[in-house]
Amino acid sequence: MGYPETAEGFCVHSQDKWQEFKKTEFKLKKFEDRDIDIAIEACGVCGSDVHSITGGWGEVPLPLCVGHEVIGTAIKVGKDVKTIKVGDRVGVGAQIRADLTCDNCKADQENYCPNMVDTYGAPYEDGTIAQGGYSSHMRAHEYFTFKIPDNIESSIAAPMLCAGLTTYSPLVRLGAGPGKKVGIVGIGGLGHFAIMWASALGAEVYAISHSPDKKDDAMKMGAKEFICSKDEGWEKPYSFKFDFILNCADATDKFNLPTYFSTLKVMGKFHNVGLGDKPLPQLMAQDFAPNGCYIGASHIGNRPEMLAMFELASKQNIKSWVETIDISEEGCKEAVTRVYKNDVRYRFTLVNYDKQFGKRT
Amino acid sequence: MGYPETAEGFCVHSQDKWQEFKKTEFKLKKFEDRDIDIAIEACGVCGSDVHSITGGWGEVPLPLCVGHEVIGTAIKVGKDVKTIKVGDRVGVGAQIRADLTCDNCKADQENYCPNMVDTYGAPYEDGTIAQGGYSSHMRAHEYFTFKIPDNIESSIAAPMLCAGLTTYSPLVRLGAGPGKKVGIVGIGGLGHFAIMWASALGAEVYAISHSPDKKDDAMKMGAKEFICSKDEGWEKPYSFKFDFILNCADATDKFNLPTYFSTLKVMGKFHNVGLGDKPLPQLMAQDFAPNGCYIGASHIGNRPEMLAMFELASKQNIKSWVETIDISEEGCKEAVTRVYKNDVRYRFTLVNYDKQFGKRT
Repeated sequence: MGYPETAEGFCVHSQDKWQEFKKTEFKLKKFEDRDIDIAIEACGVCGSDVHSITGGWGEVPLPLCVGHEVIGTAIKVGKDVKTIKVGDRVGVGAQIRADLTCDNCKADQENYCPNMVDTYGAPYEDGTIAQGGYSSHMRAHEYFTFKIPDNIESSIAAPMLCAGLTTYSPLVRLGAGPGKKVGIVGIGGLGHFAIMWASALGAEVYAISHSPDKKDDAMKMGAKEFICSKDEGWEKPYSFKFDFILNCADATDKFNLPTYFSTLKVMGKFHNVGLGDKPLPQLMAQDFAPNGCYIGASHIGNRPEMLAMFELASKQNIKSWVETIDISEEGCKEAVTRVYKNDVRYRFTLVNYDKQFGKRT
Repeated sequence: MGYPETAEGFCVHSQDKWQEFKKTEFKLKKFEDRDIDIAIEACGVCGSDVHSITGGWGEVPLPLCVGHEVIGTAIKVGKDVKTIKVGDRVGVGAQIRADLTCDNCKADQENYCPNMVDTYGAPYEDGTIAQGGYSSHMRAHEYFTFKIPDNIESSIAAPMLCAGLTTYSPLVRLGAGPGKKVGIVGIGGLGHFAIMWASALGAEVYAISHSPDKKDDAMKMGAKEFICSKDEGWEKPYSFKFDFILNCADATDKFNLPTYFSTLKVMGKFHNVGLGDKPLPQLMAQDFAPNGCYIGASHIGNRPEMLAMFELASKQNIKSWVETIDISEEGCKEAVTRVYKNDVRYRFTLVNYDKQFGKRT
């Protein structure tokens, strides 16, 4: 077989052996009129990839090819595709399909469509399992395919497609901008974007981290202040201070949440984008009462936000902090192992796809 | 001694014997220039009273006189009092003091003032313990004393001062009004107000309860629909339906919260005003992700909301559903025992104070 019926990618075959990637052929979904085929050239390595292959978020269909921060070249476009043409450099994030007809989709909330399909590990209507971007090709619906601005190179653009959008969307929806004080908790793959976006949007950014050695990086990313949450009583000077907190850490199970809540303004929000393997600490309804605050979370973002984020990055020359790794069995293993160990500042992008998959354009 | 140095009230002397009320004399705080002395004629019996005397919310200073839905007549006003004159019928709710100078107070968020004093069981700056309304007299700051509209009788007005405001405030802040679909969970002391207010404000009200026998009451209170949450799959027809839910139940520890969340619109809120003795069920951050929802809580409401609530009740002739009980050792015992057992539709007001405390006006 081979493309266009199949693609090949580095797949995990067992959650017990999640560091073992084998080049494996898999079926692509049926090509439809708004589909675009992409020859992949780069893919970011997301915490979700690790949660999925390790089983931290539960079972997945196997073999599984992860990767949902995909950059490549459009090599075929369906007859109804209007926004992309063959040869365009495009990206795909963590969502690859929605019904586009439900009330949520019609309200630009397709990231909450009850019929959404995740970019990997999820079944299409016809039963085909969507597979991710540690692979030669991807077949994506136009609505979830984005033209990448020329001045953002592929390895830099890739992690924006999931980590970037996942932080950009709630920041914008919660009103990050001039006059707003925003706490960003956790300076990692997600948090480093959150600091850069919030700062670029004009908010006053307070980076909150357990790791004092991340202070310099946080300040370079645009934080106004660095707060070390390992210090006893760190929250005291920030009582009722932040309009909201974007929690980008995924070890929230270890947090003393009421401490964080105490730094929120009245009716402020503690918004999670870091989704850990473990439950949040148990809370009393009373824990929200001292300032009437809320806790919640969000799921990636919508198409208009993705386009606005790339425009912001392009105009303000915002760059992901990435380390590139050549894609291969060893490269995938190194990337997920180091993400698992939190040994990355701040994001990996897998590159050099031609060496593994040949020139496909 | 006696008034004006002291008042007498029905006090609990031990959390182990929380049903035993004894008429006890206690000290009133020093009279200041914005204080008002009130000869009490009625007091609502609030779930908080029971949580406090039973120890469900922790220790309290003893002996304790509870009651924070107080109606009476102003018998003395400080020289700087402008809004109340001697002879006025007034009410006091669950908060009796705030610094009125902090950022929260200046932003009409005095119900989140870090220096607030609760109406009972809390120390004033001078060390005097504030005591509640199961008593002869109350000394209250003008800012927390409200003139009661003439067309609302005292036993009806009393429960509005805490239960009424506690539901009215979040309803208004969350935007209850025409075009909004609001879920009210738990039809009890709080919930019956929530249904009446939300309906009076013009929202479409969905009453959600485990007790199918409350359907008729809920419809009379103004619900558009009654949903029995004991039925398996009750939530399915209401997927993404409600702008927000006001949870007035305090047995939330037994709820399957993701089921309730699934009925919220994107970014909808599950807002708690029922504050139980037990923690909320443990949640994953992921539980909020299907619609980007939030959970939180609030603490009573502010002065403008209290005034607006009474105006609404007065104009639309909204009446608390109350059963009156004569105040006495036995009366207090009956009231708190039946509230503890949830045997009340929907609120008690203690009345006939003159019989116990004499005519004080």
